[in-house]
Amino acid sequence: MEGNFIYHNPTKLYFGEEAMSHLGKELKNYGPTVMLSYGGGSIKRNGIYDAVVAALKEAGKNIVENPGVMPNPTYEKVLEGCRLVRENGVDLILAVGGGSTIDYAKAVSASAYYDGDAWDHYWVHQENPVCQTVPVGSVLTMVGTGSEMNGGSVITNRKAGFKLGKVFGPGLYPKFTILNPRFTMTVPHYQMVAGFFDIMSHLMEQYFAGHADCTTDYLNEGLMRSLIHSTRIAAKNPQDYEARANIMWTATWALNTLLKCGKGGDWEVHQIGHAIGLVTDATHGMTLASVSLPYYRLVMHDGLHQFVRFAVNVWGVRPDGKTDEQVATEGLECLEAWMKEIGVVTHSRELGVTDQNIPAIADAALILPVGYRTLTRDEVVDILHQSM
Amino acid sequence: MEGNFIYHNPTKLYFGEEAMSHLGKELKNYGPTVMLSYGGGSIKRNGIYDAVVAALKEAGKNIVENPGVMPNPTYEKVLEGCRLVRENGVDLILAVGGGSTIDYAKAVSASAYYDGDAWDHYWVHQENPVCQTVPVGSVLTMVGTGSEMNGGSVITNRKAGFKLGKVFGPGLYPKFTILNPRFTMTVPHYQMVAGFFDIMSHLMEQYFAGHADCTTDYLNEGLMRSLIHSTRIAAKNPQDYEARANIMWTATWALNTLLKCGKGGDWEVHQIGHAIGLVTDATHGMTLASVSLPYYRLVMHDGLHQFVRFAVNVWGVRPDGKTDEQVATEGLECLEAWMKEIGVVTHSRELGVTDQNIPAIADAALILPVGYRTLTRDEVVDILHQSM
Repeated sequence: MEGNFIYHNPTKLYFGEEAMSHLGKELKNYGPTVMLSYGGGSIKRNGIYDAVVAALKEAGKNIVENPGVMPNPTYEKVLEGCRLVRENGVDLILAVGGGSTIDYAKAVSASAYYDGDAWDHYWVHQENPVCQTVPVGSVLTMVGTGSEMNGGSVITNRKAGFKLGKVFGPGLYPKFTILNPRFTMTVPHYQMVAGFFDIMSHLMEQYFAGHADCTTDYLNEGLMRSLIHSTRIAAKNPQDYEARANIMWTATWALNTLLKCGKGGDWEVHQIGHAIGLVTDATHGMTLASVSLPYYRLVMHDGLHQFVRFAVNVWGVRPDGKTDEQVATEGLECLEAWMKEIGVVTHSRELGVTDQNIPAIADAALILPVGYRTLTRDEVVDILHQSM
Repeated sequence: MEGNFIYHNPTKLYFGEEAMSHLGKELKNYGPTVMLSYGGGSIKRNGIYDAVVAALKEAGKNIVENPGVMPNPTYEKVLEGCRLVRENGVDLILAVGGGSTIDYAKAVSASAYYDGDAWDHYWVHQENPVCQTVPVGSVLTMVGTGSEMNGGSVITNRKAGFKLGKVFGPGLYPKFTILNPRFTMTVPHYQMVAGFFDIMSHLMEQYFAGHADCTTDYLNEGLMRSLIHSTRIAAKNPQDYEARANIMWTATWALNTLLKCGKGGDWEVHQIGHAIGLVTDATHGMTLASVSLPYYRLVMHDGLHQFVRFAVNVWGVRPDGKTDEQVATEGLECLEAWMKEIGVVTHSRELGVTDQNIPAIADAALILPVGYRTLTRDEVVDILHQSM
């Protein structure tokens, strides 16, 4: 463990097939008016909406409907939520959906009572809002972002022309989250495996940094090994409860701040992935998958010890009689084989990347001066070419 | 992940060599009167007492002194703390020490304002006290019990003639804990390595149960691997900061409820260890070490798949061409070799177990109907004989 850090994660998790049965008791901790934030109609088709509304009615709550939260929630939509909160004196925002919906609920919570331009507030403020906030609870229906147990919130401001990723402090983490693995089973196959890779990417982004021996890396290896095992099963049989349950739990712990304790992180794959998403509108997890192999093949030489460790401890590569470079390379071959097995995109041209739009993507990719190597713009271009 | 469970751990952890620098800010969250609970004079000799008092004075707090908390805190001592809390209107109990001191602070917190017999209350109540409680904070100086981030509390009632282990809910967890690995470096070598084994035992007690594939076991394996690596270093060089830091972090996560999520546990080694401690007054971690090998050699046959996994994933045993029994046995041989390397007791006669007192120990050992095998009393006696 290097340096000094604070770990504080007060989110209460209810896990399992019966997790929803706790919602009624949990709702007693909050006032009478609950804003129900959700996306499209999928939760109405699969019965989750009805179950949540039944629990709210049983608890005697007034429901303020706030549907239509989009996959990339906009600032305009945040303002709509803020208005609903103020007009109705909302006591709890209950987000039902995936990471986007929970991100949105946090943004509304932080902004609703700010006396001024909420976007400025949202952007400028370092960690915790200075105004009154509204408690957020969540019912998770798609795994990946970890928003159910962290302070992350990504909002798109079309006027300003960019997406803004915020990480709030524990005061804005969901107070509680309902995690029922069955709720994730109706996600379409493409989105499901994209989510699987998103989780793996969160793990790798935090793993590939640092030179010290750190307990955090051992925990990360455990989560990677569990994820690899369970995604192999779930990709073939999405209805396998045990596998989906393990994946749901892994996703939550992959990004709830535990895995950054006592070490740095990388996050460059996410920067290039976001840039691809901005230009092509491709699914987030797939953009990460498309560039991970060329990226890691480049930085492997700078963080060789960790790539050797990745090969041996995560993939079971035997190092006997091989050079470190050979072992590390074999580890990345195992990663590639797993990606093909679960069926994620390994070529960015499948996502709409072309020789023509590579310069625009490279321009949009933020280069972070952390991890094992700080890329040059030329290297970003090279990675994108190799990713095609 | 099997079944349904709740995870909720709101303790805020400040970790690192500068962790104490956060105490002043943290103290602002509490009223003016702080009871300082601690054990003997060791924290006065190593400077930790002075640092804590300086922070309390800097924050303008009134200090209520509560020294003399013993390694096995008694109910009489709890009553003394309760009286101090009531008489002084204590706003925060700050426990400075190891697990016993923090256990004690929780017991006082739960009992101080109970209108009636606090022992009955403490014993009878299922999880959370029904009366007003007092917030607890902690500064940890010895690793092992995990009390710094859980609801565990063990109190000895001499009149009633037994020790009582309680597990309170998150409301009684320490609100915050200061984890500075340097604070653990003055612990005597024998106590230090006993603590190392206590941590390993917490991990194994939770690992050796269940048949399902569960992410929790992968996390547990990660912590075991980190612990084994770092204790090998720290046993030789107790001043190795990196190793001691990893061990401190591992100890906290080994028993903060994460490792029981989605699976059962065993805890039989702790039952036999407690019984040895009751009869011989030996150091807790050493009692666990003395019986672990004969216990696991017996139950290995009932949970063979998990002992094979332990051998391969934790100790790196290669399974090629071997039977499961051989692989599992090799894993336990690795465990034994590590125990000898770090220098824990592997023979209970070194702790005062004799042919004469074995029946009394077996009588005192609670037999739990969980884990891979429910022991008979004869098996407990056999294990004790083999442990000598």
